[in-house]
Amino acid sequence: MTHVTVWNEYLHERQDELVAAVYPKGIHQAIADGIACGDFTVGTATLDQPENGLTDEVLKKTDVLIWWAHMGHEQVSDETVNRVHQRVLQGMGLIVLHSGHFSKVFKKLMGTSCDLRWREYGEKERIWVVDPAHPIAEGIGLYFELEKEEMYGEHFDIPAPDELVFVSWFEGGEVFRSGCTYHRGQGKIFYFRPGHETHPTYYDKNVLKVIANAIRWAAPKHGANPIYGYNEPLEAIVKKG
Amino acid sequence: MTHVTVWNEYLHERQDELVAAVYPKGIHQAIADGIACGDFTVGTATLDQPENGLTDEVLKKTDVLIWWAHMGHEQVSDETVNRVHQRVLQGMGLIVLHSGHFSKVFKKLMGTSCDLRWREYGEKERIWVVDPAHPIAEGIGLYFELEKEEMYGEHFDIPAPDELVFVSWFEGGEVFRSGCTYHRGQGKIFYFRPGHETHPTYYDKNVLKVIANAIRWAAPKHGANPIYGYNEPLEAIVKKG
Amino acid sequence: MTHVTVWNEYLHERQDELVAAVYPKGIHQAIADGIACGDFTVGTATLDQPENGLTDEVLKKTDVLIWWAHMGHEQVSDETVNRVHQRVLQGMGLIVLHSGHFSKVFKKLMGTSCDLRWREYGEKERIWVVDPAHPIAEGIGLYFELEKEEMYGEHFDIPAPDELVFVSWFEGGEVFRSGCTYHRGQGKIFYFRPGHETHPTYYDKNVLKVIANAIRWAAPKHGANPIYGYNEPLEAIVKKG
Amino acid sequence: MTHVTVWNEYLHERQDELVAAVYPKGIHQAIADGIACGDFTVGTATLDQPENGLTDEVLKKTDVLIWWAHMGHEQVSDETVNRVHQRVLQGMGLIVLHSGHFSKVFKKLMGTSCDLRWREYGEKERIWVVDPAHPIAEGIGLYFELEKEEMYGEHFDIPAPDELVFVSWFEGGEVFRSGCTYHRGQGKIFYFRPGHETHPTYYDKNVLKVIANAIRWAAPKHGANPIYGYNEPLEAIVKKG
Repeated sequence: MTHVTVWNEYLHERQDELVAAVYPKGIHQAIADGIACGDFTVGTATLDQPENGLTDEVLKKTDVLIWWAHMGHEQVSDETVNRVHQRVLQGMGLIVLHSGHFSKVFKKLMGTSCDLRWREYGEKERIWVVDPAHPIAEGIGLYFELEKEEMYGEHFDIPAPDELVFVSWFEGGEVFRSGCTYHRGQGKIFYFRPGHETHPTYYDKNVLKVIANAIRWAAPKHGANPIYGYNEPLEAIVKKG
Repeated sequence: MTHVTVWNEYLHERQDELVAAVYPKGIHQAIADGIACGDFTVGTATLDQPENGLTDEVLKKTDVLIWWAHMGHEQVSDETVNRVHQRVLQGMGLIVLHSGHFSKVFKKLMGTSCDLRWREYGEKERIWVVDPAHPIAEGIGLYFELEKEEMYGEHFDIPAPDELVFVSWFEGGEVFRSGCTYHRGQGKIFYFRPGHETHPTYYDKNVLKVIANAIRWAAPKHGANPIYGYNEPLEAIVKKG
Repeated sequence: MTHVTVWNEYLHERQDELVAAVYPKGIHQAIADGIACGDFTVGTATLDQPENGLTDEVLKKTDVLIWWAHMGHEQVSDETVNRVHQRVLQGMGLIVLHSGHFSKVFKKLMGTSCDLRWREYGEKERIWVVDPAHPIAEGIGLYFELEKEEMYGEHFDIPAPDELVFVSWFEGGEVFRSGCTYHRGQGKIFYFRPGHETHPTYYDKNVLKVIANAIRWAAPKHGANPIYGYNEPLEAIVKKG
Repeated sequence: MTHVTVWNEYLHERQDELVAAVYPKGIHQAIADGIACGDFTVGTATLDQPENGLTDEVLKKTDVLIWWAHMGHEQVSDETVNRVHQRVLQGMGLIVLHSGHFSKVFKKLMGTSCDLRWREYGEKERIWVVDPAHPIAEGIGLYFELEKEEMYGEHFDIPAPDELVFVSWFEGGEVFRSGCTYHRGQGKIFYFRPGHETHPTYYDKNVLKVIANAIRWAAPKHGANPIYGYNEPLEAIVKKG
């Protein structure tokens, strides 16, 4: 059983009627409901909770953390960012969605600006599978479409992904590396592009399938961890200097 | 349930008393016994069987094929090699062990000479985990040791692995990329170095754990496949030339 | 000074008036003229020449080989393919253009089917830079456009490139990994998508700039090569088995 | 002409007689002298200078920055770290040596702890080439040796390198990924392991050859940069939401 925590800043949905109409219980709850299945227990957490809802206790029991944020990036405390960062390096899975590309924790894990090109036109996005052997693409086939989405375009300033799973085509003329995996420390990270707050993206069955696949891929399984620092020789050698 | 076929040329064990003493039922049977568990059904196949034991029927039901070979590489027919190659591209997992680096099918999948440096001294090998987030390293910790092994040394003429999981240290002064993953088509491939025929390597619990981890990682799960060839436009466009 | 050989099957240009009108001296000559500069000496070779124009002598003096082919893949002899393959592993650079994806030598180097989706509609292609730090993207900026091209779409059945430099957007709705680098043995390979025979792609200044950049990147510089096979211990160790 | 700045904290050499005896003019000067050639202009900078010697003016004219540090990591100001980080993303090459693995700027660029295992025994290190096609390995051949070095062992907590060029063997039983390349933004980064302050490593001709090769590889050449942020559609599309 994998324990998932869906974290959402939960600001747009409470400040903007258009967004509230799409996600009346918040993006986090839509995702939590959408991925519910016998393999996962799912909790949620939001920015306004004590310690941004991500206490040591919550993180300790979380196998995979899902992150949606946009206008509230700066409101996440540095302490929270450091706790999440540490837990990822120790093995917690992290799935960063859409505008989470500019979150403090994703930028800290990537080491780059994570900048990109964008446009809110509600245009068509077609998400192509470029690595059909990857478990995160399981069940998708060639591609899937979202009728209306925000555009994110290259260059996306990220490290070359360990594995590139999806590339998006946009009606307005751009492409984007939409599904990117990384190992960082003992943790696995998946960045997944779709999910502008004004569109019903997190009710789409393919989007939910990808997120569920990514949870299974990112869940930690480790029974033994690296040990760092000084170590005695493993072979009989003479100290020379 | 994952169906595993362990393929072995099964020559050394029947021609050399020293090897027979270590693997009286053959390397294939030692591996099959060693990985037996509730998650796998395991069969074996050998070079001397019709169609080298790898008929369409056998391959069709095989989720993950394990390959051990050394002196008999040239005795494997090109038809067999092509059947296995095709099945890998269609999604079958392939685990290539030790001297299988020089098998026709591995060279065909890699595109390089797959050459390396070697020495039979029965020296110590220490296999280090360099990607502790990888599921194939699950449960290994920092490293494990084999007291007596053949040495394989760099440069190993393979494509840069998609993921490098293990690096070996040898008593005689060499290093080797010992655990390498690749995606080819819809299939997953893992090359794992240890396993000279005169040493009891395939009874070692860490070696068996790695092979079992690799089977779980390489097992195909796909419900939808790419389609190639001509395709009509997905958008309404005018043919210009 | 880098010596470049531009190889072309040179069939369409002699059989099809439309193609001949675009490339009266052949695609090879258009490329040779287009990349001419003080850093390169450029020769050409074609399918109909003895040993397909790629004798040992020609290959020995070639630093970087450029490959255009389409309808004549099967007419290239296996001996030629093996000679080219060997030279790449020994350090010769190889730039495979457009329909060369289905050439024997590219498939042999990749190990996969190299299949893809395609359409001849003369539609717009926009080629985006996804790795602006890469020397092959030098001078391109964000993207460049080709008004009329054949479409190649994902899934493109290749190994994950060592480095992904370009991704194409097509008017009809597809994306494609258009600029892919690989190391194989001591050789460097660049696959570059554009160049259907009915379009004046090889007169485009951005396409020519990319090819020239790729030549500089792929040119071999090695003063020392790996040695394979048996080797004595580098440390004083006792033979144990 | 490539302008190189060799940065050194320059503390050990002024506090420890043993180190001063090896590097009387500082590690930075030994490197600057060792790489001097007609292709480079070389300057140096040290921690104790205003703005840690890395003012905007210095960084602006630097094509490739070399970084050696150990005990003074925390004395480098956050402003300096941010300036260097920005310049790397904008295209400056960065070569991080030995204990620089724990510098603020390397950790910020990598996103991981950059921790490792270590031992000061003055033991033998043998550095193997695992990517003979890479320009940084130019002229090295199979391997080179350092008679006395500090040991750094796996697991080294870094992102999987874009390209792995060298792997070290240590007398005491460990291995280490000793030569690692990364692209970050428009900048190229090379981490190179050797260089403990008590050993004459930076006088070794192979070490100097690798550093010079890395400078050539990392030098920026870009004539056009990505532009981020809002962008208008490139195709005629209707705004839908």
